[in-house]
Amino acid sequence: MYDVGRVREDFPILSRKVNGVDLVYLDNGASAQKPQAVIDAVTRAYSEEYANVHRGLHYLSNLATENYEAVRGKIARFLGAAEDEIIFTTGSTMGLNLVSYGWAEPRIEPGDEIVLSVMEHHANIVPWHFLRERHGAVLRWVETDPDGGLDPQAVIDAFGPRTKIVAVTHMSNVLGTVVDVATICQAARERGIVSVIDGSQAAVHMPVNMAEIGCDFYAITGHKLYGPSASGALYARRERQAEMRPFLGGGDMIREVTRDHVSYADGPMKFEAGTPGIVQQIGLGAAIDYLTGLGMENVAAHERILRDYARQRLGGLNWLDLQGRSAGKGAIFSFTMRGGAHPHDISTVVDRKGVAVRAGHHCAQPLMAHLGVTATCRASFALYNTTDEVDRLVDALELCHELFG
Amino acid sequence: MYDVGRVREDFPILSRKVNGVDLVYLDNGASAQKPQAVIDAVTRAYSEEYANVHRGLHYLSNLATENYEAVRGKIARFLGAAEDEIIFTTGSTMGLNLVSYGWAEPRIEPGDEIVLSVMEHHANIVPWHFLRERHGAVLRWVETDPDGGLDPQAVIDAFGPRTKIVAVTHMSNVLGTVVDVATICQAARERGIVSVIDGSQAAVHMPVNMAEIGCDFYAITGHKLYGPSASGALYARRERQAEMRPFLGGGDMIREVTRDHVSYADGPMKFEAGTPGIVQQIGLGAAIDYLTGLGMENVAAHERILRDYARQRLGGLNWLDLQGRSAGKGAIFSFTMRGGAHPHDISTVVDRKGVAVRAGHHCAQPLMAHLGVTATCRASFALYNTTDEVDRLVDALELCHELFG
Repeated sequence: MYDVGRVREDFPILSRKVNGVDLVYLDNGASAQKPQAVIDAVTRAYSEEYANVHRGLHYLSNLATENYEAVRGKIARFLGAAEDEIIFTTGSTMGLNLVSYGWAEPRIEPGDEIVLSVMEHHANIVPWHFLRERHGAVLRWVETDPDGGLDPQAVIDAFGPRTKIVAVTHMSNVLGTVVDVATICQAARERGIVSVIDGSQAAVHMPVNMAEIGCDFYAITGHKLYGPSASGALYARRERQAEMRPFLGGGDMIREVTRDHVSYADGPMKFEAGTPGIVQQIGLGAAIDYLTGLGMENVAAHERILRDYARQRLGGLNWLDLQGRSAGKGAIFSFTMRGGAHPHDISTVVDRKGVAVRAGHHCAQPLMAHLGVTATCRASFALYNTTDEVDRLVDALELCHELFG
Repeated sequence: MYDVGRVREDFPILSRKVNGVDLVYLDNGASAQKPQAVIDAVTRAYSEEYANVHRGLHYLSNLATENYEAVRGKIARFLGAAEDEIIFTTGSTMGLNLVSYGWAEPRIEPGDEIVLSVMEHHANIVPWHFLRERHGAVLRWVETDPDGGLDPQAVIDAFGPRTKIVAVTHMSNVLGTVVDVATICQAARERGIVSVIDGSQAAVHMPVNMAEIGCDFYAITGHKLYGPSASGALYARRERQAEMRPFLGGGDMIREVTRDHVSYADGPMKFEAGTPGIVQQIGLGAAIDYLTGLGMENVAAHERILRDYARQRLGGLNWLDLQGRSAGKGAIFSFTMRGGAHPHDISTVVDRKGVAVRAGHHCAQPLMAHLGVTATCRASFALYNTTDEVDRLVDALELCHELFG
């Protein structure tokens, strides 16, 4: 475990005030704050070590290339993968679209099926809707349990002879549900179905390992992982990469371009067109170093304490409907106020008390429909949150209940 | 005009040494260095004002959204366009692929023609090659003049009844050639041909105005424009946006997602899926403020002096083959050493003297083939370069000539 008070000092924004009181930042599911080590890495890259990468032979270009490419190894180790299985992206949205355009689109035929859970984020839905709209793919939806859990057997039962892809989240951004993706991926592999895992939330909150999960693709997003905006990576199994056609066309991803012909680099470069997010990825490397320094097991242990305490405190508010009570869930709580305020109003009121929560559909409208709501409030915790902040949230909600209840 | 000595103090990296001597950074065509104002904007955004944008109602989310969306107006004014014609991208590669996938792919039929100049960057070639490979489009290439100029009439003469798109650069990244894109775009519009202009270089070196150019699409890239890596924008005329289908699928670009259906937001949001490069775009806004403060006319005037001086000094080296002598060209010089060193060797030797130039095909292999070379050295100047640095380059080249000549 770590000293959370000491850790909080690493995040400059956490010492600021909002509306005259200390900030309580519980919107980590949308995006996490950045430690000074990440900000410093970005500043140093721009102030002292910046040039374009890959195509230069001069000192700064070599230095920037070295700093940038070193991040591939850091991500590979963080995910338990090989370096050449890491494709740099600008986040999960780009990663999942790359799978859809690069692997799926050339091989999906009308009637082919894609299996999804109803709690997917739009980033893991809309690219598949494109294949439905444009190529006649069929989306097969798997329900969640009443407690918000996802039974892996229910996913496996949805597999049919036409199933080509299963796309599920490793951790719900709304309910905090952790999905047993390893069981799903193993069953998929036995049936020749390609598995696409949205790791946007899971990789932030617990150790993840590609070898153990056995997926074909795993998308992570840097800005949720305490890294810069527009950083990220896609794990893509070597065999799948070899089957993919390029997605974005431009510099760096080619072998040769003539007037009549073009040939492509091998992966992962084949999927990294143009000048990449050099400094963002360097910042993401610093974020991963920071997380590795704390230890993901310790992060997970700290967040379990937050989860248990928040579950107890929020569960004690009998005018609150809490969504998602599955075993082993992460520290993400969605709720509505019974017969009371709209989530938007709740968010606005607790903000007056310095508490930042998100209100809305959380880019998960099929889940909202499944839950019978149009929006929820969401308090999502991070490695730097404290039980005191849970109390601050509860105090603010009680005020809200007095106002609207 | 501005005091270049004073301006140089704004760029922290310019005071560093490389290989024991003062850095002479002449690799601006690949990527430009960043003023302190950009670095500070990035630091402030992460340290004090960070949250995810658009979907939040709390203080920091509103503040980040305000800072981020303000940049759309800055870019619109910088380009002489309306705010809703500015689509945020991660750079020109993303912008040009968005045009290819979003506008062109749904409407290109086998035999339809795309007119390109031979001096296009791969970012403005490979997306069109995709349409050739996947949909049977025909690429029509327009030659450059012996001096590296591109006659707009030659482009217009290449238009035929099957021409759907003309895609040309506003300024060559290899030769510095400035293209009369307004004449090309007017002729295209009269014929119902959609015009796609690669403004990656031009927008950095001179004032550009969409109303005057009259194009349908214009791509700029932030990292060449003194902004952060992975920042950028695509100007897309309103009528063309309305014709485009979405490209990346995910959050923020939808109106509603159900299990069986998806509907999309209006442009420009329709084309901005997922959490965007929030802090990068804020940094790009600071870069544009910086450029506007100097005045793009002043930047262009300063670089004309550099161009004239460099042309005279490099032209005096009778063992150097200079590529590109068209009138009104920008301060970008490509060259090879007659009967001498490979461009890679030249780059390595001048780097020992602290001079950063690029060597290679500059992501323009069709132009290399047209010029009868496989690679060149390129010295590309920026608003902070000086005539003294031209002398430093020439001194380093003379040393190189002694070594290899």
